[in-house]
Amino acid sequence: MKVFDEIESEVQSYARAFPRIFNRAQGEYLYDEEGNQYLDFLAGAGTLNYGHNNPVFKKALLEYIERDGITHGLDLHTAAKRDFLETFYEKILQPRGLSYVMQFTGPTGTNAVEAAMKIARKYKGRENIISFTNGFHGVTAGSLAATGNSHHRGAAGVSMAGVTRMPYDGYLGEDIDTTAYLDKVLSDSSSGVDHPAAVIVETVQGEGGINAATTTWLRNLSEVCKKHDVLLIIDDIQAGCGRTGSYFSFEESGVVPDIVTLSKSLSGYGLPFAVVLMRPELDQWKPGEHNGTFRGNNLAFVTATAAIDHYWSDDKFAAEVLRKGDYIEKRLEKIVDNYGDGNLTTRGRGMFRGLNCVNGDLAGQITREAFRHGLVIETSGADDHVVKTLCPLTISDDNLKKALDIVEAAVAKVLKGQDVPEEHDFFAEDGGENSEKKDELAGAA
Amino acid sequence: MKVFDEIESEVQSYARAFPRIFNRAQGEYLYDEEGNQYLDFLAGAGTLNYGHNNPVFKKALLEYIERDGITHGLDLHTAAKRDFLETFYEKILQPRGLSYVMQFTGPTGTNAVEAAMKIARKYKGRENIISFTNGFHGVTAGSLAATGNSHHRGAAGVSMAGVTRMPYDGYLGEDIDTTAYLDKVLSDSSSGVDHPAAVIVETVQGEGGINAATTTWLRNLSEVCKKHDVLLIIDDIQAGCGRTGSYFSFEESGVVPDIVTLSKSLSGYGLPFAVVLMRPELDQWKPGEHNGTFRGNNLAFVTATAAIDHYWSDDKFAAEVLRKGDYIEKRLEKIVDNYGDGNLTTRGRGMFRGLNCVNGDLAGQITREAFRHGLVIETSGADDHVVKTLCPLTISDDNLKKALDIVEAAVAKVLKGQDVPEEHDFFAEDGGENSEKKDELAGAA
Amino acid sequence: MKVFDEIESEVQSYARAFPRIFNRAQGEYLYDEEGNQYLDFLAGAGTLNYGHNNPVFKKALLEYIERDGITHGLDLHTAAKRDFLETFYEKILQPRGLSYVMQFTGPTGTNAVEAAMKIARKYKGRENIISFTNGFHGVTAGSLAATGNSHHRGAAGVSMAGVTRMPYDGYLGEDIDTTAYLDKVLSDSSSGVDHPAAVIVETVQGEGGINAATTTWLRNLSEVCKKHDVLLIIDDIQAGCGRTGSYFSFEESGVVPDIVTLSKSLSGYGLPFAVVLMRPELDQWKPGEHNGTFRGNNLAFVTATAAIDHYWSDDKFAAEVLRKGDYIEKRLEKIVDNYGDGNLTTRGRGMFRGLNCVNGDLAGQITREAFRHGLVIETSGADDHVVKTLCPLTISDDNLKKALDIVEAAVAKVLKGQDVPEEHDFFAEDGGENSEKKDELAGAA
Amino acid sequence: MKVFDEIESEVQSYARAFPRIFNRAQGEYLYDEEGNQYLDFLAGAGTLNYGHNNPVFKKALLEYIERDGITHGLDLHTAAKRDFLETFYEKILQPRGLSYVMQFTGPTGTNAVEAAMKIARKYKGRENIISFTNGFHGVTAGSLAATGNSHHRGAAGVSMAGVTRMPYDGYLGEDIDTTAYLDKVLSDSSSGVDHPAAVIVETVQGEGGINAATTTWLRNLSEVCKKHDVLLIIDDIQAGCGRTGSYFSFEESGVVPDIVTLSKSLSGYGLPFAVVLMRPELDQWKPGEHNGTFRGNNLAFVTATAAIDHYWSDDKFAAEVLRKGDYIEKRLEKIVDNYGDGNLTTRGRGMFRGLNCVNGDLAGQITREAFRHGLVIETSGADDHVVKTLCPLTISDDNLKKALDIVEAAVAKVLKGQDVPEEHDFFAEDGGENSEKKDELAGAA
Repeated sequence: MKVFDEIESEVQSYARAFPRIFNRAQGEYLYDEEGNQYLDFLAGAGTLNYGHNNPVFKKALLEYIERDGITHGLDLHTAAKRDFLETFYEKILQPRGLSYVMQFTGPTGTNAVEAAMKIARKYKGRENIISFTNGFHGVTAGSLAATGNSHHRGAAGVSMAGVTRMPYDGYLGEDIDTTAYLDKVLSDSSSGVDHPAAVIVETVQGEGGINAATTTWLRNLSEVCKKHDVLLIIDDIQAGCGRTGSYFSFEESGVVPDIVTLSKSLSGYGLPFAVVLMRPELDQWKPGEHNGTFRGNNLAFVTATAAIDHYWSDDKFAAEVLRKGDYIEKRLEKIVDNYGDGNLTTRGRGMFRGLNCVNGDLAGQITREAFRHGLVIETSGADDHVVKTLCPLTISDDNLKKALDIVEAAVAKVLKGQDVPEEHDFFAEDGGENSEKKDELAGAA
Repeated sequence: MKVFDEIESEVQSYARAFPRIFNRAQGEYLYDEEGNQYLDFLAGAGTLNYGHNNPVFKKALLEYIERDGITHGLDLHTAAKRDFLETFYEKILQPRGLSYVMQFTGPTGTNAVEAAMKIARKYKGRENIISFTNGFHGVTAGSLAATGNSHHRGAAGVSMAGVTRMPYDGYLGEDIDTTAYLDKVLSDSSSGVDHPAAVIVETVQGEGGINAATTTWLRNLSEVCKKHDVLLIIDDIQAGCGRTGSYFSFEESGVVPDIVTLSKSLSGYGLPFAVVLMRPELDQWKPGEHNGTFRGNNLAFVTATAAIDHYWSDDKFAAEVLRKGDYIEKRLEKIVDNYGDGNLTTRGRGMFRGLNCVNGDLAGQITREAFRHGLVIETSGADDHVVKTLCPLTISDDNLKKALDIVEAAVAKVLKGQDVPEEHDFFAEDGGENSEKKDELAGAA
Repeated sequence: MKVFDEIESEVQSYARAFPRIFNRAQGEYLYDEEGNQYLDFLAGAGTLNYGHNNPVFKKALLEYIERDGITHGLDLHTAAKRDFLETFYEKILQPRGLSYVMQFTGPTGTNAVEAAMKIARKYKGRENIISFTNGFHGVTAGSLAATGNSHHRGAAGVSMAGVTRMPYDGYLGEDIDTTAYLDKVLSDSSSGVDHPAAVIVETVQGEGGINAATTTWLRNLSEVCKKHDVLLIIDDIQAGCGRTGSYFSFEESGVVPDIVTLSKSLSGYGLPFAVVLMRPELDQWKPGEHNGTFRGNNLAFVTATAAIDHYWSDDKFAAEVLRKGDYIEKRLEKIVDNYGDGNLTTRGRGMFRGLNCVNGDLAGQITREAFRHGLVIETSGADDHVVKTLCPLTISDDNLKKALDIVEAAVAKVLKGQDVPEEHDFFAEDGGENSEKKDELAGAA
Repeated sequence: MKVFDEIESEVQSYARAFPRIFNRAQGEYLYDEEGNQYLDFLAGAGTLNYGHNNPVFKKALLEYIERDGITHGLDLHTAAKRDFLETFYEKILQPRGLSYVMQFTGPTGTNAVEAAMKIARKYKGRENIISFTNGFHGVTAGSLAATGNSHHRGAAGVSMAGVTRMPYDGYLGEDIDTTAYLDKVLSDSSSGVDHPAAVIVETVQGEGGINAATTTWLRNLSEVCKKHDVLLIIDDIQAGCGRTGSYFSFEESGVVPDIVTLSKSLSGYGLPFAVVLMRPELDQWKPGEHNGTFRGNNLAFVTATAAIDHYWSDDKFAAEVLRKGDYIEKRLEKIVDNYGDGNLTTRGRGMFRGLNCVNGDLAGQITREAFRHGLVIETSGADDHVVKTLCPLTISDDNLKKALDIVEAAVAKVLKGQDVPEEHDFFAEDGGENSEKKDELAGAA
């Protein structure tokens, strides 16, 4: 470990929480150099929706590398890019009635967000962009302006202009529709909120603490945008690619954003990749106006194509995500009921769920306890107060149960000082039997 | 090609100049789907110093993927990361007497620049950063402020604060040392140039038109920085990793920067990767303060380690680069002498060379003509007026000669309307014979 | 008038609404060159609280000029400055238990606001300042960032950073205390609202449409500021100097701001003058750090001293303002009742009142109609939808009645197409007689 | 003095250098409360070109106040404003062939500069403005961005965007025409200097240390502006109104700026007043878009009209300024020759002159020594290293001589430890006699 202490920067974060040297990974498993096995409920912070080193994509990737397919080609046309574009169009866009053009930005989420904000400003000829409390959109200067977290904002070192903050769904209490406030400031020529080019929003705020906007709020937001001639950018970097039970997280709401950013699980294999989708008329870029050396990562084209082909040619995978998501929700609700004393709550939708422990210390104790039992799991939120259950969507039912058992045991230990025997059968608490467990998770892939 | 027209954004740039669908690549060769072979003098804009799909790294990469090595691990410690850190320390830093810590930023050059600017501002508690005319540091909002190109700056959409522009070496004429001007404004409390946290500079400005600073200027710049308690950031993203004939482009000058950014050819295989090197006392980051999903790209660790092991364990590779660089210089000078009519000039150092055609139209005609003869070659500079000879450093002598023959023929055709027979032996013009060609290349080192 | 059309800039505003050449003024009367008399309900937009050319101050001013008292002395100590400081301390600060130091800024309100924002940022070492919807604080770049009006903001020409907008009292509806929202964003480290140096607020928003904050809201705002270590700046430029019935507009609330800006009626005579009051520990200015050629206008010292001596040595003047303010309120309420059809409302407190016509066209018709009957009166608010009754505080009861009669007649004409005979006795409608009029005004205090 | 220590802010500056309580002033004389008389070589930092309380303007002012002329009228048309506009047109603009419209901004120089920068940005639709090393344009946020002094810039508290700094005439040495550098960055699309809306420049930098641009440089600057479609703003706030020997300081150069700012001595009487002059087609303001309570100071209209009538109806006054300016220059050159030991130099033109002492301590000792002998005189420049001889233009020859005698004696004392007898006749050193002195200053008003 010495080399990490001596040569790697102090900026390390996850490495501090999980001080092991990892060496191998498969599906929902991580292995350290000493051969210890861990279940991965961090999953690359949403990057490994299809698990580590998914064998389907791995095969495609190895073949491509073997045959000296283009690895790096700037934005040159390649066969791999064509295949990806065609597959994305046929399997994702067309069936959903979406007509977007796709921009390959630098292969990081923040780069896609910067491009999205630029094109919105350019198209509308306005500077202001609305973002929301607890939003996270990256830490390069442009996207950092839209990000809420003071830990990250504090490192900016320069004034961050061009973004106005609005309260997210529920921020002013359950009774208040915060889109009405947005509507009011945009209607009021003296509100001091400059007419924005766009609104940028996550449908579920991952880093912000697994805050899921309601479909009603999203629809209202979309209406307010239309009413005031403002573009709607949905940052689907963490919530997209299936995490909430549909390819795009906004499908359930029926909202059609003007611009969408995707990254994280887009390549399927954890390879750096990011795109901006935009309505064709917004595509006012001049050649190379937003560029970057690694835009259009060809290895990522290969795995992304395989991922879409394999998982999104029909609805089965999406259905599975919803089924497992429901299971996670039930388990988390049971935890809340059994150990929460009225303090804990659950959050999220699909397989984008969390346990709000209100208190960061508590959440940290729970994840540390879980790690002692072989579960890699993290927190998010302003005070790191939400335990995130961000496992691969492809996790087996057994492992999902096992991991949530560990979470439950950790909560019990931390909150009640209660040791839950490892062989304890949580499903039995439902008064059921082993056979019922299977029913509950019936049909898991 | 239809899918590119219909679904890919108008932001495409290189794809416009080279309208082929590329499918395979090896070393200095690119192949399109129809099986045509091209020599690559673009080389990923400096990303493919070791050629396409270098077989040494390919082997390491395939083995790693095969055995399910960690592909994506956020910033978790991995064996691949450890090996890279150790190799970089032993083969690169230690032999050069450099003691830096390394930060893995998002895997794009611009992300490394943003991190470098942030840590400089944070450490010094000052906002201003000095950058130079014709500098290029990326297009996300923070690095774009330091970038000179109006094409990119014009898309910012917000005020870009926190950067003061200074004239680069030679900008005010050969007789004027522009670091004296910098010294003056920093000495003058009423100059209006706020005391900067740092200066950010490229030793050779690639996108700016292959402008190479002299070692004297770099040393003076370093002295001015020290005198005024200002950090020196060398952005070695394009000039580093061997391009100028040493691993870092600043080695010849003896200057030791406080912060260095690396990307492009760092992974060796064209995989997205970027790091910031900084003096240990500058490493004031709080955990995760600058983060990013793809920081620490493990596949890139694997190929980068192989690249350093293979090419930088001794001085041979560096010597080869200098030898070939001299050859390129001689060839370009001959072109200038034979066809320039006093208008053309050569630029650059090592294998970071260019032919200044003054006029963008002319340069564009030359590269298009070269492409018709199987050479992928591009321009750079404010008016795209410099033809860049940015081939893989590993190119064979034969192919190097062949490519420069094509360049010469293209220049002859465009400037003189003169058809140079393809089988024409340029070396013969030196009065020599084939055997002498080898000598010419051999003795150059 | 030709010279105004040909040589004066198009930026003219009030001159368009009242196209006369004015030549003389006394108390609440304006006279044009043709000898026409007007009642002034604009009163220099709050600058003429003591009427035009108040004879008491005029005498002091003439004597000072006659004896060659210092007119311009930069910030040199002068006898006039000393007298003003002593008088302000003895008559204003000491009786109210306020211990402030006073900074003489450039003699415009916006300059005082810029200085207040600077010193707050400097003292706290933070950049962000909270301002409110519909706030108006001036149009130089620093204060413009805090101003809400899009008409003014649209002319900025550069990004305006460093200010976060919050909803003013009542902006989210009567039931919602918007200081709770402020408290929440300041408590939430991920709200995206950077920890501010200060909040800047008007107790009554003049340009914003005569929106009066409640004392409860002001107290809550002050508490939120204290809780979060944030300075409270009250911009009392328009509401201060007696307009609301006390010297400072915040006296009724009991709130003690950290910083106060004063201008407009401070000199009493309409002479350019502005100051910043601040708690002594905030006074971290270095000599001349915020300067300006006309800071410390000595003629203004003379009239301001006379104004304070004459009107603020006891409570009588304040009581008169409250009495007349009540009368204005009653009259406006009657107008609302008689002609409003449920659409009009009244606003404000003290003699800082307005009639909200909801609609800017309507309000404009009313003021134009009033002008036809000899009343100079203006609108404010986002849509110029509020008719402002901003007369000199020293207006006679008869003229106050007369002017409000004209307002009422104008409303009647515009809304009902109804001609109200000029000799119509509005007080009689109350069932009273002339003698009762006096009682109505007399008993209001 | 206690009240100043206890109640007035620490921001005091001149008051520290001249710790007296001044009470009366006439022409070039200041008097303190104890009856001491001082010669004023500070002259309101250029505000009192016509001396203190000039009797001609005083008469006009008293009459206007006596007859209750409009004192405060926002931007309403008044007879006083008309008279001023007409007089300015007839006596100043028309004879010089200048066709400008005039905007009355808030009555401070900085407000005029903010308005000038806004209208330039608005008209050109560009954000960037070029300003120069050592320039001073005010300290409100917009003009502060253009100001060079770090003392003032350091108090900004927010990023200052939208201004690019260029070297002033002579900044890179006498041989280098810095307008060529400006031309180069504006011609170079990759210079990183965004296409500016305007250049803002002082012909003589007062606060910057009495740096006088040559007419050649000004002409070249004007040419560069025209070539690149950039507006030229001359900030004539300190150098204008006769200080350099013509009404506008740019007359000698023949340059016709697009925009001019005036303030300081414009009113003639030290009353707050500022205007922007602009070519009619630039006047794209919407009504009230840039506003301010004290714009259009009517008392200032009255004295400004009298000043123009009295001093600028013919060329005599201008000639006198040049004559006295020559005298000042000769005296300063003699001081340099006699006491400078090759270190001191003179600077400036007209009656805008200074003695460059290189060293701020030295300059400070000289002005303190001079004050001990009854001369109020100040320094300027980055290090307060230039002793400014900024007396009223109307000073008598005797007093001019007397004051320069004091300066010389102070220099002699400080540099040579040499006491110069007060009765020493400096003119005699020229080998002349008393009668010749008169000739030298022949015909002074």
